[in-house]
Amino acid sequence: MDYRQAGVDIDAGNEVVRRIRTLARGTFTPGVLSEIGSFGGLFQLGAAGVTDPVLVASADGVGTKLRLAFMTGVHHTIGRDLVNHCVNDILVQGAEPLFFLDYLATGRLDPEVALKIVQGLADGCRENGCALLGGETAEMPGFYADGEYDVAGFIVGAVSRGRLIDGKTISPGDGLIGVPSSGLHTNGYSLARRIAFDIAGLHHDSVVPELGTTIGEALLVPHRSYLAVVRPMLSNGTGTGTGTVKGMAHITGGGITDNLPRILPHGMHAVIDRGAWTVPPVFRWLQSRGAVPVDDMYRTFNMGVGLIIVCASADVTAIIDRLESAGEPHAVLIGEIGAGGHGVQYA
Amino acid sequence: MDYRQAGVDIDAGNEVVRRIRTLARGTFTPGVLSEIGSFGGLFQLGAAGVTDPVLVASADGVGTKLRLAFMTGVHHTIGRDLVNHCVNDILVQGAEPLFFLDYLATGRLDPEVALKIVQGLADGCRENGCALLGGETAEMPGFYADGEYDVAGFIVGAVSRGRLIDGKTISPGDGLIGVPSSGLHTNGYSLARRIAFDIAGLHHDSVVPELGTTIGEALLVPHRSYLAVVRPMLSNGTGTGTGTVKGMAHITGGGITDNLPRILPHGMHAVIDRGAWTVPPVFRWLQSRGAVPVDDMYRTFNMGVGLIIVCASADVTAIIDRLESAGEPHAVLIGEIGAGGHGVQYA
Repeated sequence: MDYRQAGVDIDAGNEVVRRIRTLARGTFTPGVLSEIGSFGGLFQLGAAGVTDPVLVASADGVGTKLRLAFMTGVHHTIGRDLVNHCVNDILVQGAEPLFFLDYLATGRLDPEVALKIVQGLADGCRENGCALLGGETAEMPGFYADGEYDVAGFIVGAVSRGRLIDGKTISPGDGLIGVPSSGLHTNGYSLARRIAFDIAGLHHDSVVPELGTTIGEALLVPHRSYLAVVRPMLSNGTGTGTGTVKGMAHITGGGITDNLPRILPHGMHAVIDRGAWTVPPVFRWLQSRGAVPVDDMYRTFNMGVGLIIVCASADVTAIIDRLESAGEPHAVLIGEIGAGGHGVQYA
Repeated sequence: MDYRQAGVDIDAGNEVVRRIRTLARGTFTPGVLSEIGSFGGLFQLGAAGVTDPVLVASADGVGTKLRLAFMTGVHHTIGRDLVNHCVNDILVQGAEPLFFLDYLATGRLDPEVALKIVQGLADGCRENGCALLGGETAEMPGFYADGEYDVAGFIVGAVSRGRLIDGKTISPGDGLIGVPSSGLHTNGYSLARRIAFDIAGLHHDSVVPELGTTIGEALLVPHRSYLAVVRPMLSNGTGTGTGTVKGMAHITGGGITDNLPRILPHGMHAVIDRGAWTVPPVFRWLQSRGAVPVDDMYRTFNMGVGLIIVCASADVTAIIDRLESAGEPHAVLIGEIGAGGHGVQYA
């Protein structure tokens, strides 16, 4: 009786770890001091050049979007989903990413699949200038069904204390700018799968005419990172004039309804004009096929808006222009901050 | 059709999140700037008072020790296992912990169980002076069996660059000090469960006379943290005389055989005298009942040594004395570094 007979293959694991190290090394930035394989990953903070640094950290998973990867056999985009989700979660507080670690758990490690997942993580990290500093690959016999796995990500970024974006200066009359999502991102998949596969009875490669693609492809579109289009505004800090960002909300699980209030000061609410942007076809199709009440849609899905930027009404045009210069031409004013109350009202 | 019907209960989740916040708040240290619930957790690095800081980060899980929690219904010690494992992984490079985040994934959230797990995480964090800065609680219908879950932890600590412990000064003739483990810690559970429950046919509450306790209790003993007993030596940095630590290895999955070589410079091996310490009864019982080859035992379990400290042979007595002063009277010399070769030789 040895460990291999008990379902854990240390040698296969070590071989995957060796190949993961190579992928990770390709993401290393000047701050990284260690090779993957040290007990902890080492990052020299001085290399980031941030004065009076505040570390901003977040942990996340991909949720049941993983089922789409299992169904379709497409495992190389999940990593990008996870990294981008994490990057956005710290970006909304003004932080740029420093490093990322993953936790990949499976019943029995399939090296091919594990390497596709990590390739996606490494791609996502490199695209965001973030080092894949380490991680844990856990083989847990009996915990996950054959061919299934779970993956979690952990990100640390930094921002100078004076440039922290915390929403404290948000005031009534401020504008709300919606920045488009690329799809469902990583939220609402339990409901979306139920509608697509149980109610509509589709196969993952069934073409949906309204979407111009298969349902599997439509649901697997990776979560986008907002770093590239928002970064040029971060160095503005709490200044004025050319478009100061007062607050940002990443629209994840709970939709606009639950996420926007997380950054609003006490005694203010947000008014969102649902007519200000065109809800993308995938959400309209899900709403229609699932007969989902509209309030549930906005509390479950991002509805085409993955990031909301709050700024003074006088700065709205400047910020929309800066987003356009940075490569995002479709940001639009979608509402404003109101005095009193709390939460989100839809107009 | 709404999100609750699809198996995700946002309101129950929000209530758990509220109670988790209260537990987390109890761990907050002066560096913490944010309430849990911001998109990212905020930690002001200046509060740690570390000059030229190197951040040391690690990700880990509890592995199939979780099955013991499922079997016994004891869910409040898993969190301490996870935090202590992570603390040790960065401690061996000289870092003290700053903050921790968790990822807790389950099929359907049982608020009672979730809160016991997080209570354990909060206890572990408080005991290590580490803030529970955030986390993700994922409800993933169909991913985990009823009553089951997975949990991962992410830790970030800091060490002044000049005090980083990296094993580079290790040289032939150096001594290896073994510091006792508290039990299996968090490794080798797939094999241990196979032996205890399949081969020996025990129930988790069967008493094992050799252990003086039930097998469930013996296997659930929490992973210990070495922070308190090692911390007094960290401020010595790379100095000399009163016991300079050259390197430390946390003995986790892969045992002494796979973990000690991770810190050895190229062209050196370690010689371990298996007779230098008494292997605790739980390992002897597992070896005997499972008829496990001795080499597999030392490549799977910690065998009673959870941490190995490398130091000059002249410093061995001073370090053993310092460990005793810090509350660990059972550290012993277990071997030495040899020239040439690689890996671990057992004498």
